[in-house]
Amino acid sequence: MSPSPYAEMHPSVRLLLGPGPANVHPRVLQAMSAPILGHLDPELLTIMDDIRAMLQLVFRTQNELTLALSGTGSAGMEACLLNVVEPGEKVIVGVGGYFGWRLTEVARRLGAEVIQLDYPWGDIADPERVIQTYRQHQDAKVLALVHAETSTGVCQPLEEIGQEISRGDTLFLVDCVTSLGGIPVEVDHWKIDLAYSCSQKCIGMPSGLSPVTVSEKARAAISKRKSPIPSWYVGFDVLSRYWSEERMYHHTISSTLLYGLREALRLIWEEGLENRWQRHQKYGTLLQERLTSLGFTLFAREGYRLPVLTTVALPARLNPTQARTRLLREHSIEVGAGLGEYKEKLWRIGLMGSNANRANVEYLCGVVTEMLRE
Amino acid sequence: MSPSPYAEMHPSVRLLLGPGPANVHPRVLQAMSAPILGHLDPELLTIMDDIRAMLQLVFRTQNELTLALSGTGSAGMEACLLNVVEPGEKVIVGVGGYFGWRLTEVARRLGAEVIQLDYPWGDIADPERVIQTYRQHQDAKVLALVHAETSTGVCQPLEEIGQEISRGDTLFLVDCVTSLGGIPVEVDHWKIDLAYSCSQKCIGMPSGLSPVTVSEKARAAISKRKSPIPSWYVGFDVLSRYWSEERMYHHTISSTLLYGLREALRLIWEEGLENRWQRHQKYGTLLQERLTSLGFTLFAREGYRLPVLTTVALPARLNPTQARTRLLREHSIEVGAGLGEYKEKLWRIGLMGSNANRANVEYLCGVVTEMLRE
Repeated sequence: MSPSPYAEMHPSVRLLLGPGPANVHPRVLQAMSAPILGHLDPELLTIMDDIRAMLQLVFRTQNELTLALSGTGSAGMEACLLNVVEPGEKVIVGVGGYFGWRLTEVARRLGAEVIQLDYPWGDIADPERVIQTYRQHQDAKVLALVHAETSTGVCQPLEEIGQEISRGDTLFLVDCVTSLGGIPVEVDHWKIDLAYSCSQKCIGMPSGLSPVTVSEKARAAISKRKSPIPSWYVGFDVLSRYWSEERMYHHTISSTLLYGLREALRLIWEEGLENRWQRHQKYGTLLQERLTSLGFTLFAREGYRLPVLTTVALPARLNPTQARTRLLREHSIEVGAGLGEYKEKLWRIGLMGSNANRANVEYLCGVVTEMLRE
Repeated sequence: MSPSPYAEMHPSVRLLLGPGPANVHPRVLQAMSAPILGHLDPELLTIMDDIRAMLQLVFRTQNELTLALSGTGSAGMEACLLNVVEPGEKVIVGVGGYFGWRLTEVARRLGAEVIQLDYPWGDIADPERVIQTYRQHQDAKVLALVHAETSTGVCQPLEEIGQEISRGDTLFLVDCVTSLGGIPVEVDHWKIDLAYSCSQKCIGMPSGLSPVTVSEKARAAISKRKSPIPSWYVGFDVLSRYWSEERMYHHTISSTLLYGLREALRLIWEEGLENRWQRHQKYGTLLQERLTSLGFTLFAREGYRLPVLTTVALPARLNPTQARTRLLREHSIEVGAGLGEYKEKLWRIGLMGSNANRANVEYLCGVVTEMLRE
């Protein structure tokens, strides 16, 4: 036995007000320290059933194929595309931020023909324009939109688009990474065929799992593929046989992560999903009002601002990068930088899960007020 | 606030002597309850650097592209294949167990032409035969073998094969899921180009991460691809830009999982890698001797038996499935069933990580002795 050259680790206690991960409720970390169970242990299979039922509640869906993928939200994005899209097929993607771009990149890597519907960062994709584009490409396999664009803080209206698409064969794919558990997501009502999210934002656990739900329409499309699903790890054909009564061995799911997700979902249930949406709305609005009164400029289009993720330009006397670094170093508060060309221009401030509370709004605004006075 | 219909969770304390997950050292779960850090926090980036350095030690490699994928070992398998194999290219796979078959299935889903080299379950792939097959298909992009076949308990010799393959363009891909951290793995010395493992077996943490290492030869092959890497999530082109000095945002890596991996690797360092191999060998051999003396029949070929995973047929008076269920219900001991046609015929007993100790051998053999006497 020799001492490791790597010292014992003592991560700083951060207030995580960036685009996620957020801090989690103590009950979630506590649950994750429970003894490990095997991936086919009857007790773990019951936990998986509980998780599916609670994810159906949060996604507002009856979809039987509702599960947690063993990867982050990025794995969920990739899984939802690769299970349905075959090489050469058309995929319409709305791109008004980084994650819209990411969808096009994943689709291109799969050999899809990408129809890119660009709209300005900070704005929404106009539903009428989306529907027009769809009507020009009704042979598209998928129309993909980002519900809550984490790079811009914009909330995309979906219902009208979903209703229109549901009449044809095209599948409606929606990125719910930043919305699920924080603002209304109505998978069945909005006729969404494939939706994915992550665990570390409004759901309230560490990252590592990706909640996914798949409609019967999408499952039927998968069963008619000409080429095999190009993945085993996130192939819904095999994953569904593990998450269903068949309990086929597929991969070694992490009991530790499932414990955390189950506890996070229990907390959502206890609070009530609609109460939770209201809480996120309340403190997101409060933060946006406060920042505006301090001279910050909200970036997202009015009327379509996410409460869970606020994007702001800073008053001229604060340099966004320097001020962000000071927040982290002097106050252990993490806020996010902008993405892409906004890296040095914007802050992205998350109030997600248990972090959506008055104390965090007061703390951040108090510190910022002081920085502005210096 | 309303109570959840899902009760607080109290997972049973299991002795996990199946094919993984294994129980973990208390320090690992403790580390995982540390406060969450953002995926671009300078403190987390330092932790990633520590992990890379310690993984290089465990893989015995200088490969710069050495990292932990955000998925299980199955994700590692898929990543290693999909980054290098293009549709229509030849992949030679040795198949003498479930995970050899899985490699062919993943390769087929990628559109590869699979050259399947079958050998009997319980046996090794004869190195001379492997080399002959390779010489017949020197245009193959990859030759893939499973080092420690978790379905059969067999340890595959690799060195001679690696030396031969290293002279041509074919890449040597090795599944180290069950071997890494428990028995010698010599990535550089054996000329392995792509190796992947998991976190929940001999490494000693819960599942959720997949250590991967990639040689310069493999990286050069990737850079010469004609088609894009078909994945963003596990694409080494983009992942390497996050794990390197560039620190490009790629995905929200789980600080919680990284804390666990770092602590597990620190424990390996403290014990000494070679001491750890010896400990696994010692208790694996002890278990195999004891079981033999109790009338069990070892399944894997003599001379090639894994110490970390023992496959055995039971004495006639014990029904493998019933006896396994009793172990779980009455003693909270998990052992694995056989896979495929051996489901009702074999047990797979793991002594992995901190579970490779005298107490576990005594406990299991004591209980089994009693069951035989009833």
